[in-house]
Amino acid sequence: MTNTNGEGQEQIDLCEYIFKRLVQLGLGSVHGVPGDYNLTILDYVKPAGLNWVGNANELNSGYASDGYGRIKGISAMVTSYGVGDLSAINAIGGAYGERAPIVHLVGTPPTAAQEAGACLHHSLGDGRLRIFADMNKFVTAAQANLIDVDKAPALVDATLKTCVLESRPVYIELPTNLVHAKVPAPTSPIDLSLPGYDEEHETKVVSSIVESIQKSKKPMIFMGGLAARFRVTEEINEFVRLTGIPTATMTFGKGIINESIPNYQGVYMGAVGDTVFKQQVDEADLVLDFGPMHSDVNTFGFSAVPKADVTITINQYSAKFFSKDSDTSGRVYSPKSFMAKLLKSISATKLPEYPFKRGSTYPPHLLQNLKPSSKNEKIEHDEFWLSMSNFLRSGDIILVEAGTAIAGACSMVLPDNVIFMNSGLWLSIGYTLPALQGAALARREQRKEGSKEAAGFSGRSILFIGDGSLQMSVQGISDIIRNKLDTTIIVINNDGYTVERYIHGFDESYNDIQPWRNTQAASFFGAPINDSDYPVIAEQARSWGELRSLLARPDVEKGKGLAVIEVFMDLKDAPLPLKNFAGFMANRNKTNGKN
Amino acid sequence: MTNTNGEGQEQIDLCEYIFKRLVQLGLGSVHGVPGDYNLTILDYVKPAGLNWVGNANELNSGYASDGYGRIKGISAMVTSYGVGDLSAINAIGGAYGERAPIVHLVGTPPTAAQEAGACLHHSLGDGRLRIFADMNKFVTAAQANLIDVDKAPALVDATLKTCVLESRPVYIELPTNLVHAKVPAPTSPIDLSLPGYDEEHETKVVSSIVESIQKSKKPMIFMGGLAARFRVTEEINEFVRLTGIPTATMTFGKGIINESIPNYQGVYMGAVGDTVFKQQVDEADLVLDFGPMHSDVNTFGFSAVPKADVTITINQYSAKFFSKDSDTSGRVYSPKSFMAKLLKSISATKLPEYPFKRGSTYPPHLLQNLKPSSKNEKIEHDEFWLSMSNFLRSGDIILVEAGTAIAGACSMVLPDNVIFMNSGLWLSIGYTLPALQGAALARREQRKEGSKEAAGFSGRSILFIGDGSLQMSVQGISDIIRNKLDTTIIVINNDGYTVERYIHGFDESYNDIQPWRNTQAASFFGAPINDSDYPVIAEQARSWGELRSLLARPDVEKGKGLAVIEVFMDLKDAPLPLKNFAGFMANRNKTNGKN
Ligand SMILES: Cc1ncc(C[n+]2csc(CCOP(=O)(O)OP(=O)(O)O)c2C)c(N)n1
Ligand SMILES: Cc1ncc(C[n+]2csc(CCOP(=O)(O)OP(=O)(O)O)c2C)c(N)n1
Repeated sequence: MTNTNGEGQEQIDLCEYIFKRLVQLGLGSVHGVPGDYNLTILDYVKPAGLNWVGNANELNSGYASDGYGRIKGISAMVTSYGVGDLSAINAIGGAYGERAPIVHLVGTPPTAAQEAGACLHHSLGDGRLRIFADMNKFVTAAQANLIDVDKAPALVDATLKTCVLESRPVYIELPTNLVHAKVPAPTSPIDLSLPGYDEEHETKVVSSIVESIQKSKKPMIFMGGLAARFRVTEEINEFVRLTGIPTATMTFGKGIINESIPNYQGVYMGAVGDTVFKQQVDEADLVLDFGPMHSDVNTFGFSAVPKADVTITINQYSAKFFSKDSDTSGRVYSPKSFMAKLLKSISATKLPEYPFKRGSTYPPHLLQNLKPSSKNEKIEHDEFWLSMSNFLRSGDIILVEAGTAIAGACSMVLPDNVIFMNSGLWLSIGYTLPALQGAALARREQRKEGSKEAAGFSGRSILFIGDGSLQMSVQGISDIIRNKLDTTIIVINNDGYTVERYIHGFDESYNDIQPWRNTQAASFFGAPINDSDYPVIAEQARSWGELRSLLARPDVEKGKGLAVIEVFMDLKDAPLPLKNFAGFMANRNKTNGKN
Repeated sequence: MTNTNGEGQEQIDLCEYIFKRLVQLGLGSVHGVPGDYNLTILDYVKPAGLNWVGNANELNSGYASDGYGRIKGISAMVTSYGVGDLSAINAIGGAYGERAPIVHLVGTPPTAAQEAGACLHHSLGDGRLRIFADMNKFVTAAQANLIDVDKAPALVDATLKTCVLESRPVYIELPTNLVHAKVPAPTSPIDLSLPGYDEEHETKVVSSIVESIQKSKKPMIFMGGLAARFRVTEEINEFVRLTGIPTATMTFGKGIINESIPNYQGVYMGAVGDTVFKQQVDEADLVLDFGPMHSDVNTFGFSAVPKADVTITINQYSAKFFSKDSDTSGRVYSPKSFMAKLLKSISATKLPEYPFKRGSTYPPHLLQNLKPSSKNEKIEHDEFWLSMSNFLRSGDIILVEAGTAIAGACSMVLPDNVIFMNSGLWLSIGYTLPALQGAALARREQRKEGSKEAAGFSGRSILFIGDGSLQMSVQGISDIIRNKLDTTIIVINNDGYTVERYIHGFDESYNDIQPWRNTQAASFFGAPINDSDYPVIAEQARSWGELRSLLARPDVEKGKGLAVIEVFMDLKDAPLPLKNFAGFMANRNKTNGKN
């Protein structure tokens, strides 16, 4: 597909160009579903050295791309015009809100048919052939309609750059007739320079932060989930460790900080959590809020939002000091050099010790003091989440679905160097199963590539998901099997939508679901039988005894192949924080509270 | 929830008002998925006398509502703000394009939180809280944001009216805090009067049509799929019978005309089909084109579009004579009285006989002359579709998914009085399985209600679907089981996306799918075991012998309960029309053809 133009510059096909750039950005796999407007695009996947995932449907492609992108910093998905595009748009919305980098490449009709407003399949039949792009504008950070071949390479580069820098989905339309159009091959790596980067400004922000820390008597660090997008997790951990400042995470930020760091304090739940913890936050004279996501749910009804007048918000490229932007002229810092400067400055600064008390619900203490239920007893949430901590290992990838799981997981004690993924804003149930597929794939690739991030990867990717959420996107299991991904899926079967029951309609049948035989999933989706390369486990646990012996099995512990473990819990049981929080939600909805 | 205001007028809750109106329009069930912003809405479903379907996910809710609405003329779906809404929007797009009436009721955040632009879960976190409504504007015929209680009842009425009259989806936002707001109870039935209706105009259109018929020597009737939306199928059949005019249907319109009518000629496939048929159409001096849908796929690359200068297009409310609108001042006719007048006028008119020749591919002839393969032979498409005709019965509901199925089904010989549902424009695979759920439910309700339409209902709802399409929305089977719907699902397992193979990439792995054990579906989704009220059949057919003995089984024939019958076909086999057509599609995409 390569040739040269008159001036000897190498010419390649436009589609090849796109995938070349994506490979430069670290992409290893392409998610998506074929369709007649994108089939010729797919011809370029393998030759580019990329792997085609082939999802069972497009929503799952989107969710999986999100999971993949959170780990690799880039992901790509190819869908078919109209139908494939709109099927995935809910995942794109989530990726926009929670910042996952997805390049959504849509194969669109040939330009002449578009110009003619032809009555094409996958359109609405009324000539409005670009409304899908219009709809995507609401949920993507950049859009490119590649109808002008001359401008296409630059447009592709700019769009991919936005995707990477903003860590948000972008939308590219590639008409079928231009897939093969010739463009100059890239001669240098894609430009990812940060617009508005200003070293002096960076230095100033760092020194302002350090000064504020020096002045503070009772500082705290808050770790919001968006800090994971900075891609400087190691440096952030080092900062927490060096300063010794008491550090809380939000639910969405759990897992970013190694929980073994002595000044790590656990998940801060505001009004719903420990009162000792809350008092400490209320009395803090400085809060360094890294990558905050102050959604109603993530802040337990805004009760876990630190006071603005003591807060320095540290976003990816800019900081806000006590509600003021650090710079309004568009100057920004780069997270990598910013953190390097911050660490250097802090190393040279003598800081006092910052004593703090731990509340009675500090998970490691609860875990230490846990008196395990006897083996015939039913499995209950509060003990379950605590004791699952013992199953986790350094280097695991752990995903937690919305529902009781996300609330329960707040009290899991995480080993160091894990990836912990959940949703703190979009909370679209069904997200995590395909995200598990994407995350496991991304890590497997990183390991193959010998990337530093994956050095300590345990090989295990573990999902906790409710039975209701599982139903949304269950064909994600098929995608996992197809791609032979090592995953452990722990399904919490509690007969329906328990989190919703706590909010409203406890006994209403609308909170019931069709009971599935969940342990048949692997077989239904075509998992291999007796394949030592991809062993399959499907088991149920109805009591502590059953659960414990399952988790102790070496094959379960190893996490190789696919394991679906169904844990039965009572429909009426829920983790304590959820019980406390549900009332807030119900009341807000009824009384027209702002929050 | 009822009381009276000062003036003694009965007051009811806004949400009750909405459901009351929907019941007046014939609604019997509400599709959807709960979420915390809509739970209190769901409290009103049962008290209104409505049934809650409770789908496994929202895309399936949307598809099912489409299937339900096509039969009942109205459907409703409740989803959760943001995540539920966007999950379903691909189905809404299809319903817009192919005209299915869906009232999409979204539970939105309380108005104060919306006004404050709060960082709410299921939003993008940036205060743009109504972008989901903005996105829905592209694919819905009317939108209502019920934030003004005084205006809400009139707004609801107007929105529902648009839904019914246009047979298209509409979008209603009901903030949680206004679910219980008091509004006057409706005192009269909802106004469905047709704006612009003009009897004189109606008479004039009818006489112009009759005149044109009288002048014509070689007339034809074309039956487009949108004619089903006129809801005067009986009258249209009578018209075809009375005039004796040779009548073709498009793929999308198949099933509207009883195929036993002597002048019914079969599906017209333009350049891809029979040459005798094509010659007749080319020579026609008048084409009465009922409810056309001239999409590329439905017209086999626009080759089955009748010539404009001989065509009278009969849309639902207006006609176009030889490319001219019958009226440009907005005057319309009403399908019911229009057809009554047309029938009356035609009865009083002496028409000649219109001889026509049948092409060699006329399905009833092919069926008569079919020499069935011997029992050990593999099942092949062309014989399969023809011979499945013998399985069908009057009163069946038959759905056919995009893929090889939709092409093959063109040569099925349908018994009279069936409902035949497919997609002719949107062609989003996975649509038909949930649509089967919706359609079977709608018909069951109609039978219970003693409605005339359901008088001859066989009780059977039969779906033909490819293995790839099944994977998209497979949890539709769960919804079928949950609602105990009598359905027969015939899965064509040909190892992947065969229709795509024919278009491009015949042997490419991107056209493969993960092989499932499809006959385990019912069990996985929790189908009852040994329940005589809801028997479950799961069988495979790999040869003609196996298929024939299966279809001859009385329990299979009866169609009670759930049957999943997996029919294996060769990956390389396809119905003849598809083989012919695929080349067109591939070429159009590559060469930038307008069509
Ligand atoms: C796509 C989508 N639809 C609906 C919802 C509303 N919702 C939030 S949690 C939940 C129930 C989750 O149930 P399950 O996974 O069984 O977890 P449980 O709380 O029972 O443990 C629902 C329906 C949502 N968040 N996303
Ligand atoms: C939502 C959606 N995604 C992708 C497509 C593109 N597409 C059209 S037909 C088809 C394959 C259908 O395969 P299958 O159902 O197995 O039928 P077959 O042709 O193999 O009989 C695909 C992927 C689509 N139409 N809709």
